[in-house]
Amino acid sequence: MKTYAVIMAGGAGTRFWPASRADRPKQLLPLGADPVEPLLAATVRRLAPLIAPENVWIATGTRLAAATARALPDVPRAQILAEPVPRNTAPCIGWATSVIAKADPEALVCVLPSDHFMTDEAGFRATLARALDAAKSGHLATIGIVPTRPETGYGYIELGDHLPGADAETYAVARFVEKPDRARAEEYVKGGRHLWNAGMFFFRAGAMRGAIEQHLPELAAGLAKIERGEDLAAVFPTLPSVSIDHGVMEKASGLAVVKGDFGWNDVGSWESAWELGAKDAAGNVLPSDAVAVDAKNNLVRLLGGAGEASSKTVALVGVNDLVVVDTGDALLVIPRERAQDVRAIVDALKARGATRLL
Amino acid sequence: MKTYAVIMAGGAGTRFWPASRADRPKQLLPLGADPVEPLLAATVRRLAPLIAPENVWIATGTRLAAATARALPDVPRAQILAEPVPRNTAPCIGWATSVIAKADPEALVCVLPSDHFMTDEAGFRATLARALDAAKSGHLATIGIVPTRPETGYGYIELGDHLPGADAETYAVARFVEKPDRARAEEYVKGGRHLWNAGMFFFRAGAMRGAIEQHLPELAAGLAKIERGEDLAAVFPTLPSVSIDHGVMEKASGLAVVKGDFGWNDVGSWESAWELGAKDAAGNVLPSDAVAVDAKNNLVRLLGGAGEASSKTVALVGVNDLVVVDTGDALLVIPRERAQDVRAIVDALKARGATRLL
Repeated sequence: MKTYAVIMAGGAGTRFWPASRADRPKQLLPLGADPVEPLLAATVRRLAPLIAPENVWIATGTRLAAATARALPDVPRAQILAEPVPRNTAPCIGWATSVIAKADPEALVCVLPSDHFMTDEAGFRATLARALDAAKSGHLATIGIVPTRPETGYGYIELGDHLPGADAETYAVARFVEKPDRARAEEYVKGGRHLWNAGMFFFRAGAMRGAIEQHLPELAAGLAKIERGEDLAAVFPTLPSVSIDHGVMEKASGLAVVKGDFGWNDVGSWESAWELGAKDAAGNVLPSDAVAVDAKNNLVRLLGGAGEASSKTVALVGVNDLVVVDTGDALLVIPRERAQDVRAIVDALKARGATRLL
Repeated sequence: MKTYAVIMAGGAGTRFWPASRADRPKQLLPLGADPVEPLLAATVRRLAPLIAPENVWIATGTRLAAATARALPDVPRAQILAEPVPRNTAPCIGWATSVIAKADPEALVCVLPSDHFMTDEAGFRATLARALDAAKSGHLATIGIVPTRPETGYGYIELGDHLPGADAETYAVARFVEKPDRARAEEYVKGGRHLWNAGMFFFRAGAMRGAIEQHLPELAAGLAKIERGEDLAAVFPTLPSVSIDHGVMEKASGLAVVKGDFGWNDVGSWESAWELGAKDAAGNVLPSDAVAVDAKNNLVRLLGGAGEASSKTVALVGVNDLVVVDTGDALLVIPRERAQDVRAIVDALKARGATRLL
């Protein structure tokens, strides 16, 4: 039984403006600890000891296919799947599974986001191996992250019993839980029976195809048309736009979840980028030649046109807790605690029709 | 009697880093209200209704001569005097006066700084005309700025009596006063008999030559060598490094001062640049295409390599009272109230040998 990875790399995202743009989304940006490596490239590299790049498939959009291929020279070009339009994760995973199953009906598939970060990569792989074991024995499996704070921005997975015959970290899924309010999130963290849903899925191709036929027959019918050779660009827009969580996982039975605790970070904003960055003694994340005088806990990121580092000396004097991002054509200055508000900038630029910057 | 201007444009200055550099000092930067015009060009333009560019001489250093000529296409290239080494203002003014007097011994000369700003240009010219009148009748004359605050960073000129026969704004000079302490500066502002010394001087060439012979005989001797054809590069470094204020004005008699009140600003720091800039409703001085959300009283300046405007969209969110300056190779972020501390950055760059940025 051969193992394949499907990396979902279709995201657009505005939370990293001005670094992120329509044609340079978050997963193509070097936002982790090592600023030279895009998150997507890190995802493939991190996986390589378990799943080699020649068994990795990338699901992205037509607009991003070329840039995605450039970021992943080791992944065969034919394995970069370009969706004609975005239709959420169920069609994405369904189509990728169908393509892989056509060549290898016995395929074991792991589906991963392209834009997360992990500090403990070996720990991640150990968890992933457990999830693949559960999938091998027929489960739709997922990884649940042990929560470190009462986060209200994520969905949670409630643990059931230990999965019989599986290792100590693998449980049945009691249920998927929508984003909770603050009080409930605090209960979840204290209770120890709720994990963050990190959007990672593990299954035998046949098991996922069966689950889609059962729970999303409309999607199954559309995928069958594509398998029969109908035009992708005509069929794909007709697929139901639904997430794999809502469409399949929340309805399916026999789910497994593996506890994961490997320094996971979904890199949700410039604040996360500061958290992940290598800090100087004053808590600043700075380019190596920057000058900081009486400046604490700032994040400075310089990015050239294609996401690479640019050459510029940054000097900070007497400023604290700021995010400063320079992309050559745009410069952002915002307090770290307001990092979510870069959307306001993107909205303002949209309103004035500054598409060059979006 | 023909009138000539000598504009002292040899200053280096670090207070406008990263815009100011050794080969692009303050006077070559567009720091006034109109960001397209360097302060030096504004100085020549402002003067033109009284003294045409063909009668303007520029005193600068060899290193800056070419850039100075480029900034002043209307000033004859032969009238850009390049000092081999900087020797303070007395040798500068002495040499320029000597050169002008050689062609026109009856010359009436006005000496002006190259890096100041005036909001009321017509008012400035009216004051300057009065100072020239005083000089015409033989006085060494100056302009004193009516103080608007108890500034401790400037020298002051104490008014004497009205100058007999001159207009109502023209006085004898009682004495030149060094930079005062705060208490004394407050007395000066209240008293109404002290004006700021703005470094502007008006004289007949012969009067200045006589004063130098009398008070700075060593300088007079050096200038005589240059007039006889000795090598400028050999003689200039031997001239005494002394200011015209200390060396001549404080010792000379028969001085005149004209009261001036024309929105003078010596553009001493980025804080001054913010004061002078055109502000939006929230008090920000921004490039026209900038986006500001919840941001007040900030100054943003974008400068390309040669001091010209660069094309970049700046977005400020939730920040107040900041100075942000981007020059392509360097980016400064500093609170307005700490604008003087850019020197700390220049010192740090010097210490690490980053001469490219100095």
